[in-house]
Amino acid sequence: LKKSGAKDLGVLISQTPAAVAGLFTRNRVQAAPVLLCRERVRGGIARAVLVNSGNANCCTGDAGMQTARGTTAVLAAELGVPSEQVLPASTGVIGVPLPADPIEAAVPKLVQKVCPEGLQEFAEAIMTTDTVPKVAGRRGRVGGRNFGITGVAKGAGMIRPDLATMLCFICTDVAAESGALQAVLSATVRRSLNRITIDGDTSTNDTVLALANGLSGVELQQPQTRDVFQRLLGELLDDLARRLISDAEGATKLFEVIVQGAASEDEALQVARTVADSSLVKTAVFGEDANWGRVLAAAGRSGVPLDPRRIDLYFGDVMMVRDGQGCGPEAEAQTTAILRRPAFRLTIDLHMGTETASVLTCDLSLDYVRINADYRS
Amino acid sequence: LKKSGAKDLGVLISQTPAAVAGLFTRNRVQAAPVLLCRERVRGGIARAVLVNSGNANCCTGDAGMQTARGTTAVLAAELGVPSEQVLPASTGVIGVPLPADPIEAAVPKLVQKVCPEGLQEFAEAIMTTDTVPKVAGRRGRVGGRNFGITGVAKGAGMIRPDLATMLCFICTDVAAESGALQAVLSATVRRSLNRITIDGDTSTNDTVLALANGLSGVELQQPQTRDVFQRLLGELLDDLARRLISDAEGATKLFEVIVQGAASEDEALQVARTVADSSLVKTAVFGEDANWGRVLAAAGRSGVPLDPRRIDLYFGDVMMVRDGQGCGPEAEAQTTAILRRPAFRLTIDLHMGTETASVLTCDLSLDYVRINADYRS
Repeated sequence: LKKSGAKDLGVLISQTPAAVAGLFTRNRVQAAPVLLCRERVRGGIARAVLVNSGNANCCTGDAGMQTARGTTAVLAAELGVPSEQVLPASTGVIGVPLPADPIEAAVPKLVQKVCPEGLQEFAEAIMTTDTVPKVAGRRGRVGGRNFGITGVAKGAGMIRPDLATMLCFICTDVAAESGALQAVLSATVRRSLNRITIDGDTSTNDTVLALANGLSGVELQQPQTRDVFQRLLGELLDDLARRLISDAEGATKLFEVIVQGAASEDEALQVARTVADSSLVKTAVFGEDANWGRVLAAAGRSGVPLDPRRIDLYFGDVMMVRDGQGCGPEAEAQTTAILRRPAFRLTIDLHMGTETASVLTCDLSLDYVRINADYRS
Repeated sequence: LKKSGAKDLGVLISQTPAAVAGLFTRNRVQAAPVLLCRERVRGGIARAVLVNSGNANCCTGDAGMQTARGTTAVLAAELGVPSEQVLPASTGVIGVPLPADPIEAAVPKLVQKVCPEGLQEFAEAIMTTDTVPKVAGRRGRVGGRNFGITGVAKGAGMIRPDLATMLCFICTDVAAESGALQAVLSATVRRSLNRITIDGDTSTNDTVLALANGLSGVELQQPQTRDVFQRLLGELLDDLARRLISDAEGATKLFEVIVQGAASEDEALQVARTVADSSLVKTAVFGEDANWGRVLAAAGRSGVPLDPRRIDLYFGDVMMVRDGQGCGPEAEAQTTAILRRPAFRLTIDLHMGTETASVLTCDLSLDYVRINADYRS
């Protein structure tokens, strides 16, 4: 599928039927595999996931849906499981027909190669403009039993997840009802993958799947397990979210926009998102320019009622703005030093209340434009 | 005020007391001159406008307000008119104190130089990253009397007007009540300057002022005059809007996003704005890449309920997408030819209703990033 000849097909297989939970893009334009996967996740059980990169299978009409059904049917037959338990996912260019033949021909060979050590190769096979594979894991112990959670994600552009990020797969040997798994997944994604943005563009193919096959004997329904599992899954998703932003198209800096002192979490998030998506803030960060006026201008247009005369702004631990006015040349020199770092925090205190939210993002660089002006050529 | 030594101060003077109307940014962070100008426009009468570039006088606290008051008082004294009839406007970097002394020293010299032919120089004096001055005019005739409308605007970045654009000054010799002038100005700006975007960032200094001094003897209160005046003012503002986008920071292409077949004008506008502000659409246009999937993906995340299977998409007159699917290689070749043009239309038909709206915008280029990474250095 990829002209470059790079890896572009991967399968995830669970040894036993796994409880499954999923989150999907809220973009109104949704790829065929998203539509089919959403339908199948409702069944609550999954055995395998079939993922291709290099083609999103989106805006491809009935033919695209047939390809999603046909290719997953071939994998299901190979594994001897019902088609409804095989979940499709695709990522890549939109609007190009996805050919079924090369995928169907490759599936038997892929199944033969499947092994626990293959996860790194799987993570490579689902990359598009990503430059590094993204894998994270956590191990937990509850009631004398060990369990594990492993996650794989991809995505470097068209990233402002709205329920999920580009593609993310979570596997665990915990035993779970799919409803309980869904609840934990939703709660953790809301504050991790849903709090990042690269370019403000929500993908048509965003998919997060979690498969829990129970082999550890650890039961999610135990309250103690649930607490430990949710905390570890949250950490794992934060880890993947940070890897996604670190590998953002063209990015040279990673920064977290933290809004505190807001009247509500929603308002804090709205201000944080507006600042994180501002082209002017992102280009100033790329230029290592302590142009704090752009941060205040973005906050001001967020739609949140705020009082500019009460805003404080910090770059790292340096207070650059107090009560809406700059703190002078010394603060600016210190801020410029912070901006030279590869990662930093930008904290906005609205002094309107006690709520907080943060969004993780990156700068807008010359390479972002180069990558996206040339993407299909 | 400008390190480069370029022109940075201008005055507009009306021969007689003029009715005045104004529109200002809806950004919650507003510059001192915006706050003062808004207050003075309520008085309904203006004699002069004092504008500086190179410094926005924004986030400058009480000192910034004193500078706005002080500098306009010097101009008022020079002209022998009340301070309340002199309107301030500023544009440039945010958060740097605006020095009053050089402005107050320059005002008497500027007043001596004022002449009808000076408009071009005024247009130059208010430029920041603009590369060309923007002046437009219209002449009308009603009931045997001639009248004129002249407009000057500036702005090339931080442009997504939300009631107004960066700075825009309209002068006419029509006689008008300020309330009637405000109504016509609001109606025409809503569909011209409020329908453009360069980078989605609403400025803290957006100001549109219209001054009507009545010297033509043509009365706006006559219904016939009102129709002619509103049509001509609409044309003039469209003209200025197009000049603003043509001179957008780093832009190589101008394109109009037209959304038709929407259930409401608001929904049409929401889809058009989302597509026009998408970094991925804008970089594809810069790369002359017919990546229509990004247009559909942006429309899909606009929040408007739409059915992707009904969307048609045209580049110029070329149908590239029918019922949500691409029209094939021949259409793509024709679309690529359209994208090589310096200006084109992108028409999205949602087939959900009969309402239409459009937004004028530009591509996101390497030079946009270069300009904004280096703006203050």
